[in-house]
Amino acid sequence: MIKQMIGIDIGGTTIKLALIDVYGEIHKKWQIPTNITENGRNIPTDIVRSIQQTMLEQNDQQAEIIGIGIGVPGPISPDGQIVVRAVNLGWEDMPLKSAIEKELDIPVVLLNDANAAALGEMWKGAARGKSNLVFVTLGTGVGGGIILNGKVINGVHSSGGEIGHIPIYSQEQRTCGCGNTNCLETFASANGLVKTMQNMMEENQENLSAVDVFTWIEAGDQKAMTALTITVNYLGQAIAGIMNTVDAEEVVIGGGLSGAGDALLIPLKEKIDQFIFPAIRGNYNVSKAQLGNDAGIYGAVYSYLSSNEILTMEETLLR
Amino acid sequence: MIKQMIGIDIGGTTIKLALIDVYGEIHKKWQIPTNITENGRNIPTDIVRSIQQTMLEQNDQQAEIIGIGIGVPGPISPDGQIVVRAVNLGWEDMPLKSAIEKELDIPVVLLNDANAAALGEMWKGAARGKSNLVFVTLGTGVGGGIILNGKVINGVHSSGGEIGHIPIYSQEQRTCGCGNTNCLETFASANGLVKTMQNMMEENQENLSAVDVFTWIEAGDQKAMTALTITVNYLGQAIAGIMNTVDAEEVVIGGGLSGAGDALLIPLKEKIDQFIFPAIRGNYNVSKAQLGNDAGIYGAVYSYLSSNEILTMEETLLR
Repeated sequence: MIKQMIGIDIGGTTIKLALIDVYGEIHKKWQIPTNITENGRNIPTDIVRSIQQTMLEQNDQQAEIIGIGIGVPGPISPDGQIVVRAVNLGWEDMPLKSAIEKELDIPVVLLNDANAAALGEMWKGAARGKSNLVFVTLGTGVGGGIILNGKVINGVHSSGGEIGHIPIYSQEQRTCGCGNTNCLETFASANGLVKTMQNMMEENQENLSAVDVFTWIEAGDQKAMTALTITVNYLGQAIAGIMNTVDAEEVVIGGGLSGAGDALLIPLKEKIDQFIFPAIRGNYNVSKAQLGNDAGIYGAVYSYLSSNEILTMEETLLR
Repeated sequence: MIKQMIGIDIGGTTIKLALIDVYGEIHKKWQIPTNITENGRNIPTDIVRSIQQTMLEQNDQQAEIIGIGIGVPGPISPDGQIVVRAVNLGWEDMPLKSAIEKELDIPVVLLNDANAAALGEMWKGAARGKSNLVFVTLGTGVGGGIILNGKVINGVHSSGGEIGHIPIYSQEQRTCGCGNTNCLETFASANGLVKTMQNMMEENQENLSAVDVFTWIEAGDQKAMTALTITVNYLGQAIAGIMNTVDAEEVVIGGGLSGAGDALLIPLKEKIDQFIFPAIRGNYNVSKAQLGNDAGIYGAVYSYLSSNEILTMEETLLR
């Protein structure tokens, strides 16, 4: 009987699910739409039904489902029971763990989706074999997950790794979605890069995207290159500050902007090097996330494995 | 037979030692001069002899010394065996743990002095009862210790908690002792405050001290108040960034500048509040360190206790 787990990544439009074994092999991957009507109250039932149906279909394969890990777009209560809130889903204090466990009689572990992606990259992606990393997603916003000694820093108020909200200095005032001013993500996200570019253009360009900016950079456009430099300066200084605080061995950059590859990563590494503590400089890596949209399902499963100390047993088999 | 430990705090001019029991009561406290001649090579022997002499004197008290914790002004190798370097003592790769254990046959735990002070404040000082804190010392430089879930973040390169070296933004360029430019400590230490004050004065004031600046602040001097505001702005933004990364429950401010009390702590709390993630705001404290120069010896002992899991047994007795 193969021991498998279900990794789940709940997003605002789709819910990704996968059957993954303790060695990290994906046996089946599927998705269902996220039903955010009625404040997302049907999501737990949708997940339960989809799993039940899949387990019926997989019955002949003699797989045993030993646990479920779920990545959620919001903070998890420190006891791991409740999704405190998930604005994109309409959730407030959703008791997701008990809701799923009650129906399926399989143990469930909840975690924040950025933390799940960080764990996924550690288990099967860019930070494989490492146990101390700073994971940064550069998308519409800037998300993050800090892993020290193999464990996610969830924080006392479930706000560990909220590195998109590290304050930065600028003469400009940019209001963040969190209500604060000049959070890192107002400058270093895809939206932040676009805003910086728009500020430098003479004509109002409302439909500008980060992809446009990187296309111009490739074409050697000076203003676009300046916009990238500004973004990289803020991001690099902030990451150096994080590294000088937690002293990890790997910085993993994911999210849409990471698609720019070396155009982003090379100047970013230079900027981090400039400000990182000398004892760390030369002894850490900056790498691009490898798992894309699968990072969350891998990490959700890893979270279940490590929380039950199954992995310490299996880990040697994985290497 | 009372179980006791020896807490040691090695500084550049004196070595503080104390006999402390598992409940945190100090039974004897003494100090010896730090002999930094010959690259500090005699320091381990000096410590051993001083302990041997004290144990002889204490013999009639029936105390059993079960362990030694030593706080050192430099990074400790991740395996806890070696002091990687301690510039003030002249040490490079000093095998302090084995040197002491060999002579006394008592187990030794080494840790960085800022981390020791952080643990001390958690065990017996300002953060009593908490297990997640950001400890900041504002002295000649800016030191720090991050404690999460009761454990010090020592880091992969023994640079965890080097928050004095978080880069900050300024038009001015200040070179830090570490070789980088515009580290937090070049602005937020006692020296940084004095430099900011000197920049604003018409006449060259070479012998200015941080105490002078606080005296002028009390007298309502506008320039001195501006210098403090600049210091607090940098420090507050940096601490908010740390808190948004690790999400602790207590910020403890120690070191010489903390002697200014509310004149520093009240505006600092306001500045941190301005930039901290909304879920944390209102749910954390900023407090002044309580143990002064004793923080290190308490923390060194606590480090021994917790590394041997003696404390989990005793902890209930402490509350």
